Amino acid sequence: MPNRPHTDIRTIPANAYVEGVYSIVNPQIGTTRAGKSYLKCLLRDATGEIVTRQWSFDESSLGDLSAAGFVWAAGHTQVYNGQIQFIAEQVKPVDVDEDELTALLPSTAFDIDAMFQEVRSILGTIGHPALKALADTYLADEELMAAFRRCPAAVSVHHAFIGGLLEHTLQLLKLADVILPMYPLLSRDLVIMGLFLHDMGKTVELKWEKGFDYTTEGNLIGHVVRGAIWLPVKAAIAAKAGERIQPDALRALQHIILTHHGLPEHGAVKLPATPEAIFVAMLDNLDAKTATALAHTRSDSVRETDGPFTEKVWTLGTRLYRPDPLK
Amino acid sequence: MPNRPHTDIRTIPANAYVEGVYSIVNPQIGTTRAGKSYLKCLLRDATGEIVTRQWSFDESSLGDLSAAGFVWAAGHTQVYNGQIQFIAEQVKPVDVDEDELTALLPSTAFDIDAMFQEVRSILGTIGHPALKALADTYLADEELMAAFRRCPAAVSVHHAFIGGLLEHTLQLLKLADVILPMYPLLSRDLVIMGLFLHDMGKTVELKWEKGFDYTTEGNLIGHVVRGAIWLPVKAAIAAKAGERIQPDALRALQHIILTHHGLPEHGAVKLPATPEAIFVAMLDNLDAKTATALAHTRSDSVRETDGPFTEKVWTLGTRLYRPDPLK
Amino acid sequence: MPNRPHTDIRTIPANAYVEGVYSIVNPQIGTTRAGKSYLKCLLRDATGEIVTRQWSFDESSLGDLSAAGFVWAAGHTQVYNGQIQFIAEQVKPVDVDEDELTALLPSTAFDIDAMFQEVRSILGTIGHPALKALADTYLADEELMAAFRRCPAAVSVHHAFIGGLLEHTLQLLKLADVILPMYPLLSRDLVIMGLFLHDMGKTVELKWEKGFDYTTEGNLIGHVVRGAIWLPVKAAIAAKAGERIQPDALRALQHIILTHHGLPEHGAVKLPATPEAIFVAMLDNLDAKTATALAHTRSDSVRETDGPFTEKVWTLGTRLYRPDPLK
Amino acid sequence: MPNRPHTDIRTIPANAYVEGVYSIVNPQIGTTRAGKSYLKCLLRDATGEIVTRQWSFDESSLGDLSAAGFVWAAGHTQVYNGQIQFIAEQVKPVDVDEDELTALLPSTAFDIDAMFQEVRSILGTIGHPALKALADTYLADEELMAAFRRCPAAVSVHHAFIGGLLEHTLQLLKLADVILPMYPLLSRDLVIMGLFLHDMGKTVELKWEKGFDYTTEGNLIGHVVRGAIWLPVKAAIAAKAGERIQPDALRALQHIILTHHGLPEHGAVKLPATPEAIFVAMLDNLDAKTATALAHTRSDSVRETDGPFTEKVWTLGTRLYRPDPLK
Amino acid sequence: MPNRPHTDIRTIPANAYVEGVYSIVNPQIGTTRAGKSYLKCLLRDATGEIVTRQWSFDESSLGDLSAAGFVWAAGHTQVYNGQIQFIAEQVKPVDVDEDELTALLPSTAFDIDAMFQEVRSILGTIGHPALKALADTYLADEELMAAFRRCPAAVSVHHAFIGGLLEHTLQLLKLADVILPMYPLLSRDLVIMGLFLHDMGKTVELKWEKGFDYTTEGNLIGHVVRGAIWLPVKAAIAAKAGERIQPDALRALQHIILTHHGLPEHGAVKLPATPEAIFVAMLDNLDAKTATALAHTRSDSVRETDGPFTEKVWTLGTRLYRPDPLK
Amino acid sequence: MPNRPHTDIRTIPANAYVEGVYSIVNPQIGTTRAGKSYLKCLLRDATGEIVTRQWSFDESSLGDLSAAGFVWAAGHTQVYNGQIQFIAEQVKPVDVDEDELTALLPSTAFDIDAMFQEVRSILGTIGHPALKALADTYLADEELMAAFRRCPAAVSVHHAFIGGLLEHTLQLLKLADVILPMYPLLSRDLVIMGLFLHDMGKTVELKWEKGFDYTTEGNLIGHVVRGAIWLPVKAAIAAKAGERIQPDALRALQHIILTHHGLPEHGAVKLPATPEAIFVAMLDNLDAKTATALAHTRSDSVRETDGPFTEKVWTLGTRLYRPDPLK
Repeated sequence: MPNRPHTDIRTIPANAYVEGVYSIVNPQIGTTRAGKSYLKCLLRDATGEIVTRQWSFDESSLGDLSAAGFVWAAGHTQVYNGQIQFIAEQVKPVDVDEDELTALLPSTAFDIDAMFQEVRSILGTIGHPALKALADTYLADEELMAAFRRCPAAVSVHHAFIGGLLEHTLQLLKLADVILPMYPLLSRDLVIMGLFLHDMGKTVELKWEKGFDYTTEGNLIGHVVRGAIWLPVKAAIAAKAGERIQPDALRALQHIILTHHGLPEHGAVKLPATPEAIFVAMLDNLDAKTATALAHTRSDSVRETDGPFTEKVWTLGTRLYRPDPLK
Repeated sequence: MPNRPHTDIRTIPANAYVEGVYSIVNPQIGTTRAGKSYLKCLLRDATGEIVTRQWSFDESSLGDLSAAGFVWAAGHTQVYNGQIQFIAEQVKPVDVDEDELTALLPSTAFDIDAMFQEVRSILGTIGHPALKALADTYLADEELMAAFRRCPAAVSVHHAFIGGLLEHTLQLLKLADVILPMYPLLSRDLVIMGLFLHDMGKTVELKWEKGFDYTTEGNLIGHVVRGAIWLPVKAAIAAKAGERIQPDALRALQHIILTHHGLPEHGAVKLPATPEAIFVAMLDNLDAKTATALAHTRSDSVRETDGPFTEKVWTLGTRLYRPDPLK
Repeated sequence: MPNRPHTDIRTIPANAYVEGVYSIVNPQIGTTRAGKSYLKCLLRDATGEIVTRQWSFDESSLGDLSAAGFVWAAGHTQVYNGQIQFIAEQVKPVDVDEDELTALLPSTAFDIDAMFQEVRSILGTIGHPALKALADTYLADEELMAAFRRCPAAVSVHHAFIGGLLEHTLQLLKLADVILPMYPLLSRDLVIMGLFLHDMGKTVELKWEKGFDYTTEGNLIGHVVRGAIWLPVKAAIAAKAGERIQPDALRALQHIILTHHGLPEHGAVKLPATPEAIFVAMLDNLDAKTATALAHTRSDSVRETDGPFTEKVWTLGTRLYRPDPLK
Repeated sequence: MPNRPHTDIRTIPANAYVEGVYSIVNPQIGTTRAGKSYLKCLLRDATGEIVTRQWSFDESSLGDLSAAGFVWAAGHTQVYNGQIQFIAEQVKPVDVDEDELTALLPSTAFDIDAMFQEVRSILGTIGHPALKALADTYLADEELMAAFRRCPAAVSVHHAFIGGLLEHTLQLLKLADVILPMYPLLSRDLVIMGLFLHDMGKTVELKWEKGFDYTTEGNLIGHVVRGAIWLPVKAAIAAKAGERIQPDALRALQHIILTHHGLPEHGAVKLPATPEAIFVAMLDNLDAKTATALAHTRSDSVRETDGPFTEKVWTLGTRLYRPDPLK
Repeated sequence: MPNRPHTDIRTIPANAYVEGVYSIVNPQIGTTRAGKSYLKCLLRDATGEIVTRQWSFDESSLGDLSAAGFVWAAGHTQVYNGQIQFIAEQVKPVDVDEDELTALLPSTAFDIDAMFQEVRSILGTIGHPALKALADTYLADEELMAAFRRCPAAVSVHHAFIGGLLEHTLQLLKLADVILPMYPLLSRDLVIMGLFLHDMGKTVELKWEKGFDYTTEGNLIGHVVRGAIWLPVKAAIAAKAGERIQPDALRALQHIILTHHGLPEHGAVKLPATPEAIFVAMLDNLDAKTATALAHTRSDSVRETDGPFTEKVWTLGTRLYRPDPLK
Repeated sequence: MPNRPHTDIRTIPANAYVEGVYSIVNPQIGTTRAGKSYLKCLLRDATGEIVTRQWSFDESSLGDLSAAGFVWAAGHTQVYNGQIQFIAEQVKPVDVDEDELTALLPSTAFDIDAMFQEVRSILGTIGHPALKALADTYLADEELMAAFRRCPAAVSVHHAFIGGLLEHTLQLLKLADVILPMYPLLSRDLVIMGLFLHDMGKTVELKWEKGFDYTTEGNLIGHVVRGAIWLPVKAAIAAKAGERIQPDALRALQHIILTHHGLPEHGAVKLPATPEAIFVAMLDNLDAKTATALAHTRSDSVRETDGPFTEKVWTLGTRLYRPDPLK
């Protein structure tokens, strides 16, 4: 967002002037005891979010703000209930271009192009010709790959940022790359392809342009089944191009995708029933849980004043202990 | 067992003469319809087990056979109900020395000395002085290390063979060694020590000299708590030798041991609540499940005539599909 | 099976001569104490099954019997352990044609052609043009419809007979036809199509020609997801023929198929989240449970000598009380 | 409520004068920052509820308002926090007669007399003389039938309105009436009686005159057991009048009542173990779940501005998708 | 059984002559390989059970044996498969009188009259007049009290013997008698009455004359609800005799009976929701579990040769350790 | 707190002057609409807690208040939202001595010295010399016994007050003392020692000086395992003093401690597998549940205006009915 001034939310001090373009979340009309309407909402950028009020507000503009999703805001901060609050004087809908969008949403700390290149490079090591052709068919789908590069891995919890799906997928591929030599009986090619595709359906399960949320597709069908539905379509394209993948191999890949959540109560369609499916489900779980734990205890977003224990982290079922006792 | 002839059970054909020293399992008296007593039992060696009958049997020797645990047997095989059965003419109790014992129990396919040396070597990379001293204290406990080198990792299911605990522990240490660089926020030293110690209590939970089984200690206390109980004792020894480990670090290690089964219903005392404890529990699960799946589908013990699906494998909750579809 | 004599298994008395073509189940070699091999197996036809032995048996012919699946057998019955047993003198592999196959497998008591015609007729009442075109596309798939007409609804438990899927589907369609007027806010067309398609994937999940069992496809993917994968393919065919179904409607149908088992732990991919999906799941459950209960308590297969309570019926979780207290 | 003016709550606009008799819910004393007491409460009628404040309020009259349950209120509405709020100038306790009560509580959209007549008429088709006499004994209990006609079927969720129990019971009887011909092995008379009686205990489990709630009886005993306790009493009355019902039939009816919630964790005393009990439990579940889903997605109370997904509906375990995709 | 010879089953040696009257369990026809029918069954008396065969047996007398339930048998014992087996020469149906019945069924080790007197005596300490009158009404029901004195407390597991219900009830009353002074806020009278009545319904849930089993009543209704159904009937009798029990007290007693299994999944109709109901459920559980554990580890039926661990005891979920480590 | 004035919180009326030393809970900065900072917090003493505000407050003193944990406060009460609120004019950090601490925390209603003397006295009845010596070793640990005398038994729910652990332990010992004669096969000495030690680990699991909370030790290790870890240390001390306890007895005691929560999902390390461990777990549960139920329904803290039903009590899973129906 090179051409407009922008105050990063994480750095906003009390009693300061603030202006910039922000994502607007949950705008609503409040009414003071005196009967006057005001705007209440959250503003977000890639660095955080801030409670915002505009005391003199024309109710009729609420619809425009909701529709736009992004606003230009200016005003001052003050402390209310021990919290910094943004008292805006102006809040106007704006259009944002691709670059600004990137700046407004929480995003991976790594370079997306570089990560995608690493994924390509690991897929390049697949030895089985038909599987390699299948991988190439996915890589050639530009629209899908564009989504794959930007899609978060979740609405919240772990890898909930632009590029999160790519980062998580790459981490799994790199882990597999170093681990697989220690499990020589596993089919390396199946595992690599399974990891590449296991969460691909998230590109239609989630929306991320204006805040992260589930799509109707995500609620009613889900990424697990959607990923499996795509597979025969891509295989048909690869077959037309000359590399027919055997039905058994296709089914083994579908099985990996359908079972990668491990248990039916966690969203798996079946229990994993091949060594490769079990390995993929376990590795996915290892990375998801470890990344979640580290994000709550050792990441940059942990503040010095946070206590030794987090609140209960629902996906882990417990409060986490933050200190590294060797430090 | 260099000096006595021995027919490996896996290779026994029908209608052949067989002799050798075997482990005797569940010896019982049967009675033929004609009222004659006979001996029925299983004989085992490191390669498998075989149903055995001795038709003319003196009941009074049953006690000796049970007490000995090992027998010298000779006789012929025949086919009964489609199964090869050993019709022994002689079954006599024998003493076995350490070497024979090794030959009679299923054992790791790897070299125990070499594996133990690898464990030592990875522990040697621990940077934190007190933790390193603690590791040395364990390594200096010769009785414990002797048990650690031979103990199976389980009574059945995964790594249920002599050296299984060592093999499983080493596999985890090697996995961690290559993975940890990808999780720089994890405390490498804590993870390495946690993995080394997580199942150490199995050395008193299990007995393995005469077939694998749980000890009374295993049934009433269990390896999870026993491992945690040992820790302050070892730390006290290390402290006397000059390296005092901080209470926080000790507690973090105990927490890893107490929680490495992941869920209370799987035997964890608490839910893992540090990133290191979560990582250890997930990695242990990954190796245990993957090794179990491979043993049932791709190992040498899978026979050509086995169908594509196994029976239900209880720890995995499902039948497994054996074929590698890329082969 | 017009041209060969055949004794129905249900009617076989003790000490009688029996001959006919039967399905052979689980043929195995037994050995008498005297060391002679004999054949042990079950023989089945549409009316029941009988324990069978052939005392003089050439082991080398076991493979042929297993491969054939069907045999011509002749011999006498006798009572052993209070049970009628078939002591066969001859057991020879045979080929069976389609008509004989029908005669050898348990089959619906209703006329398959007539039932299929009823299904067609109810589908004919669909008012929405695109949904109707979609139904016609399925009906035009002759291979699929041939399987749909013969497929059992399950390997055991309820509707485990040739034509069982058709009978169960028709029963649901007829129930919906009379019930839907009482729920005017439900979309009748969606419910009718959803019921028609909900179990269609069973045609590849199960095999039934030589006894009922799950296919590899059934074990690794399952009928729930397979049915959903087919839907866009059929919709594409219908679209080419001129009737494009809206994505929302397609998704609603997929959602019905994916959720018709009601709960993840019962095999649903998601919880049903539309009124139509909830209704379909509940109606399917009502018919499955009621049919199961009636089969165990009031059907022709219940014998006079059966006591008032059945054994525990696993899918219902309890023993059932047979008597109708008003009779 | 013919003789008093009454503004229906659903139709109340902002900034309007409102007066009428309403049910008062949860009256409490608030205190303004200035230290003055005010009344805060909800007012309800059959069409909805509205947040209400009376700024000048004499605390001493709170007890009277609580005791009365109904008030006459007058004042103006204003918008506060985007919600219409009723700022009452007067709130006085009043007595309400039976007609007004009907007008003040949410009530079935159908005619209670007509529905009850339909129930009578379906019960009239029972063929078994003793069961018919038993039905007549219930119908002759005027106090019970008066409660049965007005009782809601639940405190919230499904059929939570005056006449809800009658409406739900009639719906089940009508469903059974059209379905039972398709299950000829079910005892129609038992099912019809079972459906009539299955929820009869709700007439003492719930109270509805002054808002819907559980009685002490409902909390400590519950409608399931209470309904079963009544049965022998009614049977004794029928027997005195000349029709003795066999103990087996009585027990079968009690079993239906005791098991109609299907699972112990849902309140069933036993698992349903007769075909009729299973059918009743399944049909009850089908209507309850379908009615709940339709009420949240397709009923008049769904507003145009509601989004495509509801909040999570607890009894269904999920958010519901509202649109009918064929419309 | 004074007038007929009887060998106690527990004391039967190998190779001995045996005769006496026994309960016959599960009589069936077997057939020898030679085609001859024989009788196989269990014989039981109060001291144990023994596998029995009669090699020459006329099939037509099987029905008489089944119907009688008791037989006079004579023959010799031999050892088969390490187990003592009774090879009967004669097995004839007989009638047994009340005394013999007592001798043939496992029975409490205590004096039934004395125990019943103790129950009466503790009930005599109830201070509340109406509750005392209610207790007297139960005690005056001679048929019920006769059943209460003999009924086992279960079909198997704990107190599964004649007089078991009385012994268990008395143990609970005596425990409460010494414990209640330490919980002065509990209503002693309610607890005492609740304990007296909590399992009273077992007198119709179980049958015990010819081996212990559930009645149809037990399967379809159960002792929990039956006990609650009886209560108002007894209260009505007490009221006629002049002591009217308040509805609240009656309901509190019903609540204790309906909830004494603690959890719905264990058969409780509701969760216990009064201090007295919670106390009764907990005390019942304490005695049931402790008595079960002692019966499997420290009772006379534990043999010297039993190992330190029992098989898994299903109601306790685990194997039990037998030795008392202080002995 | 003899020398400073103190108004007990339970007795504070509306519109009164209040002063005293109180525990300060959760102090926070609020801001009025006018932008002025104020202090909001709870003040607690042994008799209850009160919502408190100080309108003119210097934010910079918040840290001191938090650190101190105790304050001297003075001001007036007023009614706000129907609740009495404390409007403090002064709130200053103070140090409190041991006596004041006792006065400020909720505390057992019984005399701690007398209770501890009773525990000693029951332990004095242990007959087994080594167990008795072990008990004396614990009693001789003055620091541990000081904590044992003051530690609450829980952070909330049951016995959540100073001396709660002692009161609960003594109640269990007294219950066992009167019950054990009725279970002569139980080892009295093991039960008594097991009860004395079962919750001893709570002395390091909880902190109570400044409000009750879990320690890091409690969160990561827990009292169950900590209690078991201590045991061999104490046994070693006793052994040095001349009384060596056999390993079997030590293990049996550890097993009691490790299993006293009954089920893994409630925190037990194993299922109780000895009669003594089962008895201890059941008795602990009986006292905990009964005490919880009585505290919510019949204790002094229940007010006249409370309704007949409590809110849902989470550890009991239900709302409780308060009235004693015989009163």
